[in-house]
Amino acid sequence: MRIDILSLFPQMFEGPLHESMIGNAVENNVIDVGVTNFRDFTTDKHNHVDDYPYGGGAGMLLQPQPIFDALADVNAKHPEPGRVILLDPAGYQFNQKVAEDFAKEDHLTFICGHYEGYDERIRSLVTDEVSLGDYVLTGGELGAMVMIDATVRLIPGVLGNSESAPGDSFSSGLLEYPQYTRPADFRGMTVPDILLSGDHGKIDDWRLEQALKRTYERRPDMLAKMQLSGKEKQMLADIKSDAEGY
Amino acid sequence: MRIDILSLFPQMFEGPLHESMIGNAVENNVIDVGVTNFRDFTTDKHNHVDDYPYGGGAGMLLQPQPIFDALADVNAKHPEPGRVILLDPAGYQFNQKVAEDFAKEDHLTFICGHYEGYDERIRSLVTDEVSLGDYVLTGGELGAMVMIDATVRLIPGVLGNSESAPGDSFSSGLLEYPQYTRPADFRGMTVPDILLSGDHGKIDDWRLEQALKRTYERRPDMLAKMQLSGKEKQMLADIKSDAEGY
Repeated sequence: MRIDILSLFPQMFEGPLHESMIGNAVENNVIDVGVTNFRDFTTDKHNHVDDYPYGGGAGMLLQPQPIFDALADVNAKHPEPGRVILLDPAGYQFNQKVAEDFAKEDHLTFICGHYEGYDERIRSLVTDEVSLGDYVLTGGELGAMVMIDATVRLIPGVLGNSESAPGDSFSSGLLEYPQYTRPADFRGMTVPDILLSGDHGKIDDWRLEQALKRTYERRPDMLAKMQLSGKEKQMLADIKSDAEGY
Repeated sequence: MRIDILSLFPQMFEGPLHESMIGNAVENNVIDVGVTNFRDFTTDKHNHVDDYPYGGGAGMLLQPQPIFDALADVNAKHPEPGRVILLDPAGYQFNQKVAEDFAKEDHLTFICGHYEGYDERIRSLVTDEVSLGDYVLTGGELGAMVMIDATVRLIPGVLGNSESAPGDSFSSGLLEYPQYTRPADFRGMTVPDILLSGDHGKIDDWRLEQALKRTYERRPDMLAKMQLSGKEKQMLADIKSDAEGY
C-alpha cells in the first residue's frame, strides 16, 4: 500500500512512522509512506499557505492552490487509484469498519489541515471527509497517524501471530473481558480462581459473561447492535437481574 | 500543567512533542512533559514487561509490576494531584467535554498499553479509562498524543489570537459553515457572492444557515442535543423543506 500525507509539519511523523508496528510495516515494504510539505508548492513569494476568510471572522484558512498542486504532484508520482482523505471534524466518524475499508485500498492520501480551517474548494479534491471523534485538534497530523495505525494493522501479514488479536474490542462486537497474567498474587491482588482451574469450558463461559457484563455497563449502544445467541441472551438477562438487585 | 506519559515507545513522541502547538507550549513552559519507559522498571532479568494470559488465549498481556513501579516513581517526583488515564478501547469515549475537564487539571498521567491488553489489576491505578473512538490501535501512544493536543490547546494563553477558533466545530454545537479565502476565483471555482457583499448581517445569517444545513445533513445527532433559538428553528424548518423537495 502506498500512503501519502500532505502536511505542513512533516517532522511530526518522524517518530510514529519509524517505531513499533508502523515502523516494521515500512521496513518490511508492506507500506511505502511519503510525507509532502505543501508549503513547498506555494506560488506566494512569502511562502504563505493561508489567508483571511472572505466575509470576515477569526482565524486563517488554508488556500486552495498549494494543496491542489501538491496533490497533483503526488498523483503524478503515484497514480494508483485509492482514497483522498480530508481530516476534518465535520467529516463522518472514523471507526473499525472504515479502517477495514481503507485496508483494502492500494493508495491512501491524507490531507492534514490546520485548525483554522480549509478553503471550501479543497473539499472538491477528496473522496472522504473523516473525523477522528467529537473533539478539536490543532491539525490533522495526529488524526492521520491514528487512521494509518488502525488501517495498517489490518493488512494481512502486518501483525505477527503473537500479536494477532481475535478478542479485540469491536471485532467481536463486545468489549474485552478482564485479562490477567503473572503473578497470580500481585501485592495481595489475586487472579480469579476460575482462570487457574484449567477447565476451558468454564473459562470460556466466564469470559463471555464478563465481556457481556462490561459491555452492558459501559456501552449498551454496542449491545443493542448485536445479534445475541440464546446463551448470550440468558447470560445478559442474569446480568441485568443482578444489576437491578434481584 | 505537568504531563507524564508511561510508554514502551518513548521515541514515538519525539516529533509530536516538539512541533506545532504542543512544541510551543513546551517551549513557553505552559506544559512540562516527561515520557517514562516502564520497561526500565521491570524486575524481570530479561526486561520482559508482558506474559501469557491466565486461562489461555492469543496475545500477551502487560504485567502489573513495571507499570505500578513506574507510576510510583512519577508520583514521587510529581506529587501534584490530577488524573491517571488509561488508554483503552473499553473506556468511555473521549470528546470535547473531556478535553475541557482535563485542561483544568495540574497533572495528567497517560498509561499507554500495547494492543495485546493489560492485566486487569492495572486498572486499579487509574482515575479514568478513556477510548479515542470505536477502533483498535496498536498502542496507546497515538491516543495519548491526541488527548494531549485536544487538551493543551484549551489552556488559556496557548493559542494566539490569530489561532483562536470561536467557530470551532463542537464548541458552538454545530459543524462549521463553509469558509473561503483568496483568490475569489480559483480555476473557475468561485466564492459565493454573499461573502463578497460586505453586508455582515446577511453574511452572519448565511453562515448560520449553512452550519445548520451541514449539521442536519451530516450529524443530526448533534442537532438533537441543541437548544435552538426561534430563528434557528425557522431556518432548520426551511432546510428540511428544501431537502424533502417541497
